Amino acid sequence: MKEVRVGMIGYKFMGKAHSLAYRNVPFFFPGSAMPVLKAIAGRNEKGVKQAADELGFETYETDWRKLIERDDIDLIDIVTPNNSHAEIAIAAAEAGKHVICEKPLALNVEQAERMLEAVTRNKVIHMISHNYRFAPAVQYAKKLIQQGRLGRIYHVRATYLQDWIMDPDFPIAWRLKKEVTGSGALGDIGAHIIDLTRFLVGEISEVVGAMETFIKERPIEGEAGKKGQVDVDDAASFIAKFENGAMGVFEATRFAAGNRNRNSFEINAEFGSIKWDLENMNNLHVYLTEDDKGLQGFRVINCTEEEHPYAHAYWPAGHIIGYEHTFVNLISELMKAITNNELKQPNFYDGLQNQLILEAIERSSKEKKWISIAKKLEQLS
Amino acid sequence: MKEVRVGMIGYKFMGKAHSLAYRNVPFFFPGSAMPVLKAIAGRNEKGVKQAADELGFETYETDWRKLIERDDIDLIDIVTPNNSHAEIAIAAAEAGKHVICEKPLALNVEQAERMLEAVTRNKVIHMISHNYRFAPAVQYAKKLIQQGRLGRIYHVRATYLQDWIMDPDFPIAWRLKKEVTGSGALGDIGAHIIDLTRFLVGEISEVVGAMETFIKERPIEGEAGKKGQVDVDDAASFIAKFENGAMGVFEATRFAAGNRNRNSFEINAEFGSIKWDLENMNNLHVYLTEDDKGLQGFRVINCTEEEHPYAHAYWPAGHIIGYEHTFVNLISELMKAITNNELKQPNFYDGLQNQLILEAIERSSKEKKWISIAKKLEQLS
Amino acid sequence: MKEVRVGMIGYKFMGKAHSLAYRNVPFFFPGSAMPVLKAIAGRNEKGVKQAADELGFETYETDWRKLIERDDIDLIDIVTPNNSHAEIAIAAAEAGKHVICEKPLALNVEQAERMLEAVTRNKVIHMISHNYRFAPAVQYAKKLIQQGRLGRIYHVRATYLQDWIMDPDFPIAWRLKKEVTGSGALGDIGAHIIDLTRFLVGEISEVVGAMETFIKERPIEGEAGKKGQVDVDDAASFIAKFENGAMGVFEATRFAAGNRNRNSFEINAEFGSIKWDLENMNNLHVYLTEDDKGLQGFRVINCTEEEHPYAHAYWPAGHIIGYEHTFVNLISELMKAITNNELKQPNFYDGLQNQLILEAIERSSKEKKWISIAKKLEQLS
Amino acid sequence: MKEVRVGMIGYKFMGKAHSLAYRNVPFFFPGSAMPVLKAIAGRNEKGVKQAADELGFETYETDWRKLIERDDIDLIDIVTPNNSHAEIAIAAAEAGKHVICEKPLALNVEQAERMLEAVTRNKVIHMISHNYRFAPAVQYAKKLIQQGRLGRIYHVRATYLQDWIMDPDFPIAWRLKKEVTGSGALGDIGAHIIDLTRFLVGEISEVVGAMETFIKERPIEGEAGKKGQVDVDDAASFIAKFENGAMGVFEATRFAAGNRNRNSFEINAEFGSIKWDLENMNNLHVYLTEDDKGLQGFRVINCTEEEHPYAHAYWPAGHIIGYEHTFVNLISELMKAITNNELKQPNFYDGLQNQLILEAIERSSKEKKWISIAKKLEQLS
Repeated sequence: MKEVRVGMIGYKFMGKAHSLAYRNVPFFFPGSAMPVLKAIAGRNEKGVKQAADELGFETYETDWRKLIERDDIDLIDIVTPNNSHAEIAIAAAEAGKHVICEKPLALNVEQAERMLEAVTRNKVIHMISHNYRFAPAVQYAKKLIQQGRLGRIYHVRATYLQDWIMDPDFPIAWRLKKEVTGSGALGDIGAHIIDLTRFLVGEISEVVGAMETFIKERPIEGEAGKKGQVDVDDAASFIAKFENGAMGVFEATRFAAGNRNRNSFEINAEFGSIKWDLENMNNLHVYLTEDDKGLQGFRVINCTEEEHPYAHAYWPAGHIIGYEHTFVNLISELMKAITNNELKQPNFYDGLQNQLILEAIERSSKEKKWISIAKKLEQLS
Repeated sequence: MKEVRVGMIGYKFMGKAHSLAYRNVPFFFPGSAMPVLKAIAGRNEKGVKQAADELGFETYETDWRKLIERDDIDLIDIVTPNNSHAEIAIAAAEAGKHVICEKPLALNVEQAERMLEAVTRNKVIHMISHNYRFAPAVQYAKKLIQQGRLGRIYHVRATYLQDWIMDPDFPIAWRLKKEVTGSGALGDIGAHIIDLTRFLVGEISEVVGAMETFIKERPIEGEAGKKGQVDVDDAASFIAKFENGAMGVFEATRFAAGNRNRNSFEINAEFGSIKWDLENMNNLHVYLTEDDKGLQGFRVINCTEEEHPYAHAYWPAGHIIGYEHTFVNLISELMKAITNNELKQPNFYDGLQNQLILEAIERSSKEKKWISIAKKLEQLS
Repeated sequence: MKEVRVGMIGYKFMGKAHSLAYRNVPFFFPGSAMPVLKAIAGRNEKGVKQAADELGFETYETDWRKLIERDDIDLIDIVTPNNSHAEIAIAAAEAGKHVICEKPLALNVEQAERMLEAVTRNKVIHMISHNYRFAPAVQYAKKLIQQGRLGRIYHVRATYLQDWIMDPDFPIAWRLKKEVTGSGALGDIGAHIIDLTRFLVGEISEVVGAMETFIKERPIEGEAGKKGQVDVDDAASFIAKFENGAMGVFEATRFAAGNRNRNSFEINAEFGSIKWDLENMNNLHVYLTEDDKGLQGFRVINCTEEEHPYAHAYWPAGHIIGYEHTFVNLISELMKAITNNELKQPNFYDGLQNQLILEAIERSSKEKKWISIAKKLEQLS
Repeated sequence: MKEVRVGMIGYKFMGKAHSLAYRNVPFFFPGSAMPVLKAIAGRNEKGVKQAADELGFETYETDWRKLIERDDIDLIDIVTPNNSHAEIAIAAAEAGKHVICEKPLALNVEQAERMLEAVTRNKVIHMISHNYRFAPAVQYAKKLIQQGRLGRIYHVRATYLQDWIMDPDFPIAWRLKKEVTGSGALGDIGAHIIDLTRFLVGEISEVVGAMETFIKERPIEGEAGKKGQVDVDDAASFIAKFENGAMGVFEATRFAAGNRNRNSFEINAEFGSIKWDLENMNNLHVYLTEDDKGLQGFRVINCTEEEHPYAHAYWPAGHIIGYEHTFVNLISELMKAITNNELKQPNFYDGLQNQLILEAIERSSKEKKWISIAKKLEQLS
């Protein structure tokens, strides 16, 4: 079996999620390429050493450029803050490494374009870590749509609601600094629901939106008594029109008390509707107009059966999986992509398209008008 | 249109529910017989006068025997405590009045038998007020079972959970006195789930059960500082075997914190399952094994559509009805029964059969063994 | 007790709902003014005669002007299609009658202004029938907000989803004709969620939205084989900014398969969140940040208890009420208003304010930009 | 860090679940002892070789006695059918190996007693794999009970509902043969809910129950056209009384259509109630009587926060875990037990106590009477 030697750059929350996925892919998907956790890079030596130990990497580097230069690395996995994605990904591609990058792809469209150009020109495999596509319930929704079971789509409403920074004393962390993160709720969690709806519904043609920062000043981390301006959005709402005529309503916020992580969508279509939310991610709610009169209602489907994509890799019906398995499924696709030298989705094209939408929403919010999305190029295959 | 002149005996909670039903039957079921609220009886003159006024009765009596003697009364509605049901119902039947009686029918089987004998011999219409049968969702469940959509029934589990006497300082009210009420949770709410399962699943052939009184002493109402023994059950649990081979598990309790009124059942059968609970009484959850693999799940059906029995009388789909409409539907059947001189269910036969089961559970709890239910006679038609 | 003699104009779905409310107000709210169903008006004599009979009116008129002229009428109740609201309401006010009008108040802002002017100048009591405010769960939400339990409001998302015209063969009924109805989903159901959020969150200052007609041609009712253009919206989505800084996201559609009548909202605020939906209208979901860590979660509250507004009028805790009771509660307020000669909300002021928002959304959809809402005048009291 | 060298006997569904847990314990619980998957045993060489490969064991044996003899094994993990548990566990204990055994512990009480005697006499660590105790929501329920937040327990109702053998053509597999499995639904899934309630509520003092085999004849696996008698139960229902006065109602069945794996319980107590079900295993529903009037309702708590036991090992709040993590948590306790040479629960004592209850239910079903549970000995610590 082929080995894929992984070099990871960054080691926080996403580092843990990705590492576990590499660790468990061979267990759940026997026969796929075997990831080897070769090295992990981070600037803080103590931190990265401990991370290597806990996450199971053989070695570590304190300079990510060194990692990219190593010839015992096949794949670079980028889990750093957003402002370093472009530089790292381009360097990796130039070095002929395959790349997987956390979302959002970049700080802006210009960076994302350069990233896509680099991976394409260097003919490396690339993916973006929109893991929620890989929940079996979401994949099953896609399957129903592709099979035509739902028909023409009329509506999608998608929300990603969190509440972790509602306390005004929560300090300005990196996810609250524009220069590091690009945007706030919009790029962090809004990007996920844009990806989910692009995946399920299709391409967005225009948007109008509003962004808001409810708490405009916050304590600065590590500087007692000092406050700083928050320059990213706490919340973003927008309406979208899709190329296929569907209407979309979106909301991403970190100010929805009681919603720890409610990434949810509803789709209404000609022959039925579907609903999903991440906090109960194994369930898909499906309504079909073809059901007998009197017996029509949303079915609560526990997507743990053979018919549900990826579910066969896990447990018998009714034994649920969790958040981490979205990454296991995604990484299983990445392993296939590398083995067969064939791009899988979502990749940097999707990251760029997503970035175009994020940027349009930001412009729309500033200019208070609808903004059209330029479709950049055909999906690579 | 035929008028049915109603004389009601008793005027508390059930008096209000029944009165409203008579009032609204002609509105929701135009064309049915028209109930006229002729007179209401109660011992306390001030109380009964006010009740007559608020509930809309033309006159009142302070002696129920007077009411029964009046020849401007066609139907006697008994909403008094359980220990007076038998005497009143028998007197009414002997006077040639139709009778509807609150549940449980009587204090014991012997009374219930005499009641059934009296109404039968006098050829009057009789019903027992097991109103929950008349929720459209329950009626629809019955329809699915009758149509054979569910096939052979394997299991029923039914609970009626309340929490209104959990406070040890709650005094001994009439529903907590054996001489007035017969039994506690068992006869009050257990009788309802027995009726629902008899209606939906079939006759019970044997039972084994346990009854418990958690708070054995309580303040006596109106006697400050005094405590009395509670001589009825706070909770009753029992297992039943049905004639058709189904297994039943039942629980009636007033000690289920947070459950104000959770009358609920689940039925598992050969081709599917159904679930219902009173607190969301418009919804029926239906699972069908015939559904395509992958698309199998419980459907949440809002039973407000044409196909759902009685729903046509009310509002468009999605506009729910409430508790009181179970009585409106029941009374609409009673009006039909009187108009066509044709018994409807549930009637005193059902009340007697229910009483046989209640008594068997009490015996089972005392003797700690299974008790067979003697089936008394064929359902009257 | 004071009698209020009601003259109703129109007699379809809303006529039935209002009539039942008048009928039952004295039962549930003893002591309030007593509505007397004096007369009902409609152009079709056969239809109106039957309606008078079924809904319980003493007499009928085939010319609504006659009804208004009658001096045995105190209150005019307008349940006709939207294009006649203005003319009737103004005539009624000029005749010194109190007026209650179905929503939306008018076809446009100009009409609504004239209506408000007329009722104000003639010093009659006026209300608009936004009945959903009167669900106990909604009233309790209002109470929590007013008490400051939720603090500053950040977000509201409100949807009114229906699916009754998804079939392309559904004909062009009056609710699908602009000249009769003003707008489609927007004015019909969008008006309701605008009212609910105005009631709970506050005044809207600006909006941006999109309206869509998915099925552009439909059969013409009564003209076999002929099709006509649909000139109203099937769906409307919009984003709103509130005067208090809250952000709102709204959707009204008749193309949401499986949603018979899902009028729902979620509000996220500083100290908690609430959720409600009409199909399970007795439940309010409440999250409070003050709850102990570990024990934080949305509470599902069955709003049938003493603390829940209007619930005392009905049944013990856990015995739910239905759609019709929102009207009973509303009419109980109207009776109080007339008895005490004191305006209640929602009234024509609310109708006008709502109309301003509806019109702004329509303009926004056409002009593809944000539109500010002019606040017309202070709420009357 | 200490290494614990694992020898596993058996390699089907439970083998996979346990193996993954050993694999991931060091990742989620850094600092604990490190399991090393040394060897796996099974009679079929091809099967066990492939299992070794896929599950990640270094070597394999085709004779489990060989495995027990190896001195590079510290811990024997028994995941074979029930009829071999006793022999293997006793041999392992005699060889001085620590033992973890799948449930139910044995075929009968006599075996279970000998097993407990052997592990105790040989002073090895022992556990039984009742994994559902280790869902964070269940552990949090335990914490609430231990803290006295719920007070005296009145009721528990627990069901384990499955539907995988409802098809009459499903053949007689080992789980349907008494000589291999001991009992049917009762020992397989009933044992789990007995364990959960023993853990949460306390010891059971007496039971009465009924067992049923709905499909009495089934095809014999591998013998086309032949049918055999099913000699185990398809379903078992029983009522229990607990030493602390609580009442329990239980149901274990494989004939509950639409319930793939609904292991669920509800507990009603003096100061509140809790509800849980495995298919949404991250959620705990909690009702507290101390909540303000009007604000009382079941809270839906996503048990993914710091306060929820084991949750810290995984992901941020709102990112759920799945079925497999119950094993990871259990194995983390086993590693601690071995490291500190200190028994953890549940262990063979719990297995024996469970077996006593299973046997009592079987006797009760046959003899149609209540059976008392002899409490064998004090919980070992």
